[in-house]
This record gives sequence, C-alpha cells and structure tokens, in this order.
Amino acid sequence: MTTTTPPRPGERHLARMARGAEGIKPSEIPTLFAVRGRTDVVSLAGGMPNLEGLPQRAIADETAGLVALGGKVVLQYGSAQGLPKLREQICEVMSLEGIAADPDDVVVTVGSQMALDFVTRIFCDPGDLVLTEAPSYIGALGVFASYRADVVQVPVDDRGLVPDALRAALEDAERAGRRPKFLYTVPNFHNPAGVTLAVERRAEVLEICAAHDVLVVEDNPYGMLALDGRTFPALRSMDAENVVYLGSFSKTIAPGLRIGWVTAPAAVREKLVQAAESTTLCPPAFTQAVLSRYLARHDWRAQIDTYRDSYRVRRDAMLAALAEHLPEGSRWTRPEGGFFVWVTVPDGVDTDALMPYADRHKVAYVPGSAFYAEGSGRGRSELRLSFSYPTPERIAEGVRRLGLAITDYQSAH
Amino acid sequence: MTTTTPPRPGERHLARMARGAEGIKPSEIPTLFAVRGRTDVVSLAGGMPNLEGLPQRAIADETAGLVALGGKVVLQYGSAQGLPKLREQICEVMSLEGIAADPDDVVVTVGSQMALDFVTRIFCDPGDLVLTEAPSYIGALGVFASYRADVVQVPVDDRGLVPDALRAALEDAERAGRRPKFLYTVPNFHNPAGVTLAVERRAEVLEICAAHDVLVVEDNPYGMLALDGRTFPALRSMDAENVVYLGSFSKTIAPGLRIGWVTAPAAVREKLVQAAESTTLCPPAFTQAVLSRYLARHDWRAQIDTYRDSYRVRRDAMLAALAEHLPEGSRWTRPEGGFFVWVTVPDGVDTDALMPYADRHKVAYVPGSAFYAEGSGRGRSELRLSFSYPTPERIAEGVRRLGLAITDYQSAH
Repeated sequence: MTTTTPPRPGERHLARMARGAEGIKPSEIPTLFAVRGRTDVVSLAGGMPNLEGLPQRAIADETAGLVALGGKVVLQYGSAQGLPKLREQICEVMSLEGIAADPDDVVVTVGSQMALDFVTRIFCDPGDLVLTEAPSYIGALGVFASYRADVVQVPVDDRGLVPDALRAALEDAERAGRRPKFLYTVPNFHNPAGVTLAVERRAEVLEICAAHDVLVVEDNPYGMLALDGRTFPALRSMDAENVVYLGSFSKTIAPGLRIGWVTAPAAVREKLVQAAESTTLCPPAFTQAVLSRYLARHDWRAQIDTYRDSYRVRRDAMLAALAEHLPEGSRWTRPEGGFFVWVTVPDGVDTDALMPYADRHKVAYVPGSAFYAEGSGRGRSELRLSFSYPTPERIAEGVRRLGLAITDYQSAH
Repeated sequence: MTTTTPPRPGERHLARMARGAEGIKPSEIPTLFAVRGRTDVVSLAGGMPNLEGLPQRAIADETAGLVALGGKVVLQYGSAQGLPKLREQICEVMSLEGIAADPDDVVVTVGSQMALDFVTRIFCDPGDLVLTEAPSYIGALGVFASYRADVVQVPVDDRGLVPDALRAALEDAERAGRRPKFLYTVPNFHNPAGVTLAVERRAEVLEICAAHDVLVVEDNPYGMLALDGRTFPALRSMDAENVVYLGSFSKTIAPGLRIGWVTAPAAVREKLVQAAESTTLCPPAFTQAVLSRYLARHDWRAQIDTYRDSYRVRRDAMLAALAEHLPEGSRWTRPEGGFFVWVTVPDGVDTDALMPYADRHKVAYVPGSAFYAEGSGRGRSELRLSFSYPTPERIAEGVRRLGLAITDYQSAH
C-alpha cells in the first residue's frame, strides 16, 4: 500500500512561477532568530541590537505628541523618496563620516535591506556578476541569489578587503569577458568577519574599482558603533560619483521602525525612487515622522554612546571567554565595533557538523557556510558569534558551552 | 556655437542597468498629489482618504502606551510574515466579506502595493500576460510594466467586469498560444471606474478563470466602504484555491501606517514570505503593533461608519454637481462606495488636451489615458474624479470649474 501526500493548496499555480523568481528561496535569517524565545539556549546566532538603553518613555511621549498634533499628516500618504525633513537629518548623520550629500540624493527605504534589493534589481539580470567579501552578509547573498546574480567573493584579512585580491578578481573577470555590476562591501565592523577596512586601503579599493569602471555599493549599518567612538571616512565621502551608500537606523536607534536609506549619484537615485514608487508607493510616513521628531528633540549622539558602552562590555566579555574556553587551534577576530566575532575552529572541526553538538550544549551560533555563496562548499571551518544581544554573563556562558561542544566533537571524530 | 548639457552624476552607471529593470519608470502617481499643497487649485485628482474622522487622540494614547509598555519588542526586528496577533485580526476583518482564512495564510506587507509587487515578481517574466479591467488602477499598471509583463484590458460595464469579454480575451490568448499568469481585478468600487462586480457575476468570473486555469488576484482596498454599509462576498470567499486576495488598511484606518496584506493558498503564500524576507527582512513591528492595539481596543467598525458617512456626502455632492455643471453629452458612473467617479466627456473632447484648460480654471483631474496600458491610445474621452478628500463645497466648486474647462475647450475646437 502506498500513501501519497496531497498537494498543498495552490501548489499547481507554482508550476507557472516566473523563471526570474526561481532564485527567491527560504532565507536562513529566520532560523537565526528562532531560538530567541528559548531561555534554556544561549543564542550567539542572531544579530539583534540590544535595546536596553533605548529611552522608551521619551519615544512614547514624542510619538503621542506627534500623532495628537499632526496625525492627519503623519497618517497620510507621503512621498516615495521619503520625508524631506528626515532626509536632511540623514545628511547630518552621514556628515559624521565625512559625507557631503544633498537631501535630494537620499531615498528613505523600509530598512537598508530594501535599498539593497532595489540596487540589485536595477543592475542585475540573471547571470550578472557581483563582487563581495568572503565571507559576506547572509541577507545580501540572499538578495543576489533572488535575482540570480553570480557572486564572486574576495578575501579579507584583519584590515578588511584585500586590495590585491580585489584586483585579481577583477582581472579574472575581465579575462572571462565579464565586468561585475558592482562591488558590495561592508567596510566597517564587517558582518560576519568583524574586521574594518583600513583607512589607507580605502582610496586603493576605490581606485581599483574606478579603473575597472565598477560601481561600489557601500553598506554601513555599524559605522557609528566603533567601541571607542571613532568614525572612519566613508567610501562615499571619497568618491560621490561611483559609490552608492546604504545606511540604517536599525542598529543606532531601533530596527522596529524599519528605516534605512540609500544615497546615490543623481541618475541612479532617480531609478531608485521609481523602484520605490512601484514597490510601496511610499515608505510609512508615521515611522519616518517619529524618527525625525526623535532626532530633532533628543540627544541621539549621547544615545548612541550608551549603545556603544553596552556593546563594549559585551565584546570584552566575548573575547575573554573565547580565550578562556575555546580549545587550542581556535582563532578569532577582535572587532573594534559592530556586533560580530568570526571564529576559525581547530583543524578537523566542521562547523556544519558541529551544530548538533552545540544544540546538545544549548548554545546557538551561525555556521560559516551561511556566509558564502550557495554551493561554494566554503566556510566549514568558520562560524559567527554575535555579542550584541545577550548579557555579558550569558555571553560568557554561551562561549563556555561552545568550547564544550567543540571538545565533544573532537573526541567523537 | 553649441552647448552640451553635462551628464548627471552617475549617468554612466545607468548604461549598465539590468534589462529586467528597463520597465521601472516614473510613476504618474506623484503628479496626482502634486497640487495638494496649492489652495487655489481644487484637486479632484489624487485618491487620498479623508482622515478628518480619525480619532487622533486615541491613536496617540494607544501608541504611547504601547511604546512605554513594550518598546523593546515593538522596536525590535519581527517576523517576515508579520505580527501573529495582527494576522488574526486581519482574518476577522476578512470574515466580514465571507472569507474563512487561517492567520498562517496571511502575509503582512508595506501597503498592498508591495503585495502586488511580490505577486507580479513571483509570476511574471518579461513578456508574460496579465489580464485586468479596462480601465485599471495606475499603480497596478506600473507594477506590471516594471516587470515588463504584457497587459490585456477587459471591458467593464455598470455591473463590473463583463464575463463574455473575459471569456473572449482568454480565448484570444489561447489562440495565440498564451495563457495569462493571472487576472488582476478590483471587484468593489473600482479604481478608477467606480463600478462594482455584480454578485451574480462573481461565480461566473471565477468559473471562467478556473476553466482556463488562470489565477485570480483580487485587490480589495475599498470593500468596507460601501456607502450604505453593505459588504459583498469576496471572490476569495468563493474559491480559496485559485484566488490571491490583497487587502489594505490604508482606506479604512490610515495610509501612513503602510499596512496591507495578502492572503494566498499555502504554496503561493510560502513564496510570498520568501520574497518579503529577501526584500525587507520584516515589515515594521512598530506600525503593526500600533494598528493591532488600535483594532483590539477601539470600535473600528464604528470608525469605518464615520468614514462612510463622510464619503457619502462627498459622493452626493459630486453627483449633484456633475448633473448641474457638465455639458450635454457627458456621462459618468454612480459609485456606491470607494473614492471615484469615471466620467466620459462629450464627443470631440480629448481629456489629455483638456489638461491646460483645467489648469487655467484651477481644477485637477486624472486623464483617462493614465488607466490604460502605455501606448494603447485609449482613454482620451474619459477622466477620473476623486471625491474622497475635498469638502463637499470644494467638490462642487471643482466640478463647476471642470464644466467651464470643457466648455472652453469645446469653444476652441
């Protein structure tokens, strides 16, 4: 006797799915957050910001005032490009990293993820080439895959993207008759690698890309989160013509507002606005107005200092615990900002196969393979740890458990 | 001596734009709202909801309470599919139109525009065929064009989409060896036609589509806004397997929250969630929580009654003014809900060429050509008027000015 599974409702409609949509696949991101409700597991997986320091009362009061005073405006349709006042404030934020932009060159998006989706949609046909770091942000690899772009990943070292490796990748592409549509890079406090592009490399990276006439997409969610309060000159500040800059308030204020932005040279910006009009008509006027009022009336720089302090003790806790608990042969990066430490495990340990061991010890991490293009087979000796969300005590405990998981794995193999 | 215009910043990058992005073009929607700040012009163009009846104080208090109590949750990342509690409430709303859906089948989106973008992205490769009403919603035509889908528009009469015309369009397509990816339809209080699909036609439309194995995309932003408080059975309530339903709170609560949704059979819904993850990670938790709390703690049905009352006096003002001021040979629809009246002007008047006359008389409308696929040459004897936003007095004055503009035009031709 055989049993057959009945088709799911609507299954047959998928038989007529667009070929262009075949790259839209389940993301690994939800699984990163899946353990968030489980108190028995220490999650060092998801990169959620810690909102302990957020002045909830102030945001509540500001929001109430805003709605009571201007509800008929902030609850109405707005402009596709975003609230003009907020775009001015975004220019102020960017000026801290040396960017001189006009509010006209800024497009507000529903998180910077949406900005990356638009940029990719505008430039990439299936089979087009994108360069990015090895490893790279999961969400970016997901977007590139969703448009069926090919990804070539360029090595990083402790000082970020390696210029010679970038040059070699571009020359390889050229020999193959291909010109990448853009280089996607996270120069500051890289997700997942935890490294920062050295200032003296920045001009070189830009020159290499300009020489090959390749656009640079600079994604900078963590730039304001240097643990010592420094800022680095943005690539965009050095080459406004060839850099599309993605920014976000998700890590400096709060992700629940879903407000990011893209700053682009005028011709590209115009296409981005058109994509925004077609996709959402406009970003929510409500969240933009709340954020704008908060930025105007509160000391948001001091607020970011508070966040930095909370991340510094967490980073320190993680580095100390790694030194104490990880077995010999382990290495890791020492991030000076952002949320992430990138760990290389001892020879012979496979971070995909390590997952059930970590599960038994009730600790969660993200295996390195998630940060490489699908099917590359890379990343199996690496893993990502996030120190942004748990308390320092939980971080120490989580790393201790990870050490036990690795030791168990080694004993069993 | 010749002068050359310098290229805009970033212009040369557009030379390498994706072929797939060539359909992303400027929308006509911003121009509809362009006169909104000008008090000398009566705008009957944009379809902004009237938010006079919105209880701002209540929304302000609810939002403040929400942030003060649960800020760390509502300002954090959420799920790509949307807040579970809100998806339950959306099922309650849909039950008023006879839909029995599971919260699992609902995906919250940034306005229903984004839901339509996702559906089109999932199903349409360039050159694929979509059927829709003639005329059709500008924003939908924009999305279809952005994915370079071909559009065939099927006539409507006073009782909505004409079944025989739909059958003929499907047979024509079949003879040409093409099967449409879906029928996009606005059954209730159509934008721009102002007509409603007769209940006795609904099953017939579904049967015709099922016989040709064509998915139906039902867009229903105005369903709750019948001026007499009636509701009509949703197409989705009659065929859950073959209908993807788009809903919105933009017209029943407020557009500034940008909360819409899509209800789809499981297999299609799963792809929609994947598209959402890739595009925005998640819709804003903040606006979802505000809306959910408002729905839970306030009599939103009574609130919609208030909106209906305000739209009824506006619709009546517009119909009375049309009868009084439009020259002989004009015809118009008599909407029983929604925001729009569709006007056919007297023979010999071209509604594109009428624009400067209307401008001189300081009244704004949308020419009919905007509601047909680009290059079709259709709609030039038609125009759309919106009665949703201005006061009844301004509506009467606007229609008076439109009458003068038409008469001027007739004298000049």
